[in-house]
Amino acid sequence: MKKTLLLLLFLGFGLQAQTEDEQQIRAIYDAALTEGKAYYWLNHLSNQIGGRLSGSVQAQQAVEYTKEQLDSLGLDRVWLQPVMVPKWVRGAPEFAYVETKPGLTTNVPICALGGSVATPEGGLKAQVVEVQGIEDLSKLGRENIEGKIVFYNRPMDPTLINTFQSYSGCVDQRYSGAAEAAKYGAVGVIVRSMTLRLDDYPHTGSMSYGDTPVEKRIPAAAISTKGAELLSTTLKLDPNINFYFRQNCRQFPDVQSYNVIGEIRGSEHPEEIMVVGGHLDSWDLGDGSHDDGAGCVQSMEVLHLFKKIGYRPKRTLRVVLFMNEENGLRGGNKYAEVAKSKNEQHVFALESDAGGFTPRGFSFDCDDANFERIQGWKKLFEPYLIHMFVRGGSGADIGPLKDEELVLAGLRPDSQRYFDHHHAENDTFEHVNKRELELGAATMASLVYLVDKYGTVPPRKIKG
Amino acid sequence: MKKTLLLLLFLGFGLQAQTEDEQQIRAIYDAALTEGKAYYWLNHLSNQIGGRLSGSVQAQQAVEYTKEQLDSLGLDRVWLQPVMVPKWVRGAPEFAYVETKPGLTTNVPICALGGSVATPEGGLKAQVVEVQGIEDLSKLGRENIEGKIVFYNRPMDPTLINTFQSYSGCVDQRYSGAAEAAKYGAVGVIVRSMTLRLDDYPHTGSMSYGDTPVEKRIPAAAISTKGAELLSTTLKLDPNINFYFRQNCRQFPDVQSYNVIGEIRGSEHPEEIMVVGGHLDSWDLGDGSHDDGAGCVQSMEVLHLFKKIGYRPKRTLRVVLFMNEENGLRGGNKYAEVAKSKNEQHVFALESDAGGFTPRGFSFDCDDANFERIQGWKKLFEPYLIHMFVRGGSGADIGPLKDEELVLAGLRPDSQRYFDHHHAENDTFEHVNKRELELGAATMASLVYLVDKYGTVPPRKIKG
Repeated sequence: MKKTLLLLLFLGFGLQAQTEDEQQIRAIYDAALTEGKAYYWLNHLSNQIGGRLSGSVQAQQAVEYTKEQLDSLGLDRVWLQPVMVPKWVRGAPEFAYVETKPGLTTNVPICALGGSVATPEGGLKAQVVEVQGIEDLSKLGRENIEGKIVFYNRPMDPTLINTFQSYSGCVDQRYSGAAEAAKYGAVGVIVRSMTLRLDDYPHTGSMSYGDTPVEKRIPAAAISTKGAELLSTTLKLDPNINFYFRQNCRQFPDVQSYNVIGEIRGSEHPEEIMVVGGHLDSWDLGDGSHDDGAGCVQSMEVLHLFKKIGYRPKRTLRVVLFMNEENGLRGGNKYAEVAKSKNEQHVFALESDAGGFTPRGFSFDCDDANFERIQGWKKLFEPYLIHMFVRGGSGADIGPLKDEELVLAGLRPDSQRYFDHHHAENDTFEHVNKRELELGAATMASLVYLVDKYGTVPPRKIKG
Repeated sequence: MKKTLLLLLFLGFGLQAQTEDEQQIRAIYDAALTEGKAYYWLNHLSNQIGGRLSGSVQAQQAVEYTKEQLDSLGLDRVWLQPVMVPKWVRGAPEFAYVETKPGLTTNVPICALGGSVATPEGGLKAQVVEVQGIEDLSKLGRENIEGKIVFYNRPMDPTLINTFQSYSGCVDQRYSGAAEAAKYGAVGVIVRSMTLRLDDYPHTGSMSYGDTPVEKRIPAAAISTKGAELLSTTLKLDPNINFYFRQNCRQFPDVQSYNVIGEIRGSEHPEEIMVVGGHLDSWDLGDGSHDDGAGCVQSMEVLHLFKKIGYRPKRTLRVVLFMNEENGLRGGNKYAEVAKSKNEQHVFALESDAGGFTPRGFSFDCDDANFERIQGWKKLFEPYLIHMFVRGGSGADIGPLKDEELVLAGLRPDSQRYFDHHHAENDTFEHVNKRELELGAATMASLVYLVDKYGTVPPRKIKG
């Protein structure tokens, strides 16, 4: 009889615990969908401030606005963490055309890649050699490249369901294309925009010259996918046509900026820190609504939702709005550097930097024991149609925190539309759906709630 | 040894069978994402034809266009199935205002509900009584309603994750609100638009007068959600304000129209018919891209994809583009009537009428044995992030086919954005994402492929 009673008590406890989690998560989603502030904040960031390139006035305004908003949430502490960031400025709008015969030109939409040097003041005109990737350069050799513009035209693979995979399969052209082409004497680089759509928006993004000496750096620009199709077709008809482009972007010395941080101190284990975050900087062409205004306001919302449902975390919960993810990662590196110098014990970090679309789940960068524990929570997410709990990368900004003690996670929203907007003029507020944004915030808050309640599995001590 | 060999053969067979399904489904998705015609067809339906209200010139153009496109696919048979449909015409744009003091007015966006009568020619002005639903009418009683406009203002519940549930919880106000209010002597009805957004688009939709005699029918219109908020707030300040609206919509006699049907004859069991379909008619305010241009072109695409991958179905595969789902369901009823009169054996019917958004799965209306078989296929869909295999409704147009011999299914796309556009002016082509549309078509085709290959479970014969 005693055994049965114990069993019943145990079952009853299990049932009640389950029910409490279900209730809290329901309360989180309800609050997000009816009293959420994420969309309101994003409206301000996008429409009152706009694109927030590192070192810009808008980036500084975003620092001030989000700090002020975090201040208003009644957190235990809100502060700015100083970090020096690069300042690259686009300058006057870029201009480009395809010239089939002298004086016979067709304009095409381009934009300078972030970090690129300018063209000569009067622009740059040269013949074009089209390649499907960096690996084509060595096949062509210097004799076919020298003095020409290299046109990288490998498109994103449309058959991959996860569009981030398609992006990964192409982005080397944008990031390293100029440095590699310069080795063969190219005078400039044009890269097909990283998007699956056929449209007129050029998509910018970071590039690096690696160890290319300053005097050998060549200008690099993205061309819209329709522009790329036009250029490619034209080249097939006549490989000797010219391409002209002009851009006067410029790198300035580093400037002072900040990560914006707010925290609710843990009631039982204040020394254990959980981070939720996104990056406050964005590219300059659109207003950075999806990349990554969405991730910032969702991260802020996690703390707001905890306040709304009256849940005080046992562990310290910190929102970090990282500065300069796009062209330097200085904010992410600085945050990790300070955390390590202070011997802070981070147990969990969750990043949202894949757009404000319907959430589908999370990817986790952690050990087996923690992944197993987390998978045990899957059922709690089913009513909210959250079904992806996979191993994989977490996010660029929390990456530098990586440590065996830490569970890293990334929100995984539906990825189909992300690269329609990514780094382009049409990454704007009207392309964010309020409910999708809110569901993402609620999904993040629910995971943080569970991590807070049940803790992470400490790493197995290796016997010395 | 023999046993081991048999086991190995069996395993080998299982492995190979699995692999063949995986390969075919991969081929279906690849073809949809690289050679699909769905988006191209939808562009024509939406931008060259536009809104396709039953009985309109556009509806007829859509019949002709889709028949012509099906003809070009090399199917075994394409035909038009005649069906008489109602013809309701909106007339001149509607007009409405809130009048707080004589002459002091604020215009608000409204649209006539489909099937509504007109207001008197000079419009209708009356005091307003706001209710949260039909059930409030009896509480208020005739003394508070007679001579007034009833304003139904119960919003869709934002906390439900499936927005179709929120819609179901409200739509009685639109469908039956006028018939019910007329019983209490109301002179008109204004209904809050069925959307979760706060915006300026009124959303139309069907309504019915039930058995209300013609002379007692009162005009009914939808008001945008922002208009509803304004009206409600104004009524709180002064319950005696007036509301004015004018609409001159009109019902004409039924006209001739058609379901558009195409089929690939089954190679082994031609008598077993599988249907995929959507509805070709739409409301008139937008261009009906999501509702249900998307479902039509996805259904056509299923047959096109089978052709592309070179898969000839064993059973007969039929695409049916139903006419008049929105305000009559005449096409769905006619199709089922003809099928029954010809003793056709339908084994499977799949409808897409929930928007061209990222597919999440299917809902099934079938017996346990078939549901169990289908659930066994879940793993094949995992690489495509298709995870919902639930019991539930299938679709309005295939509903009349219902029979114990038949598996009915509905595609379940992500529902968050659907009611932002449903029945409103902004249900337009630019709100359909090409990949999301294509993924839906591929998901449908994959299910049809499996049903074709493995068949459905015949109903258990009940011993007499």
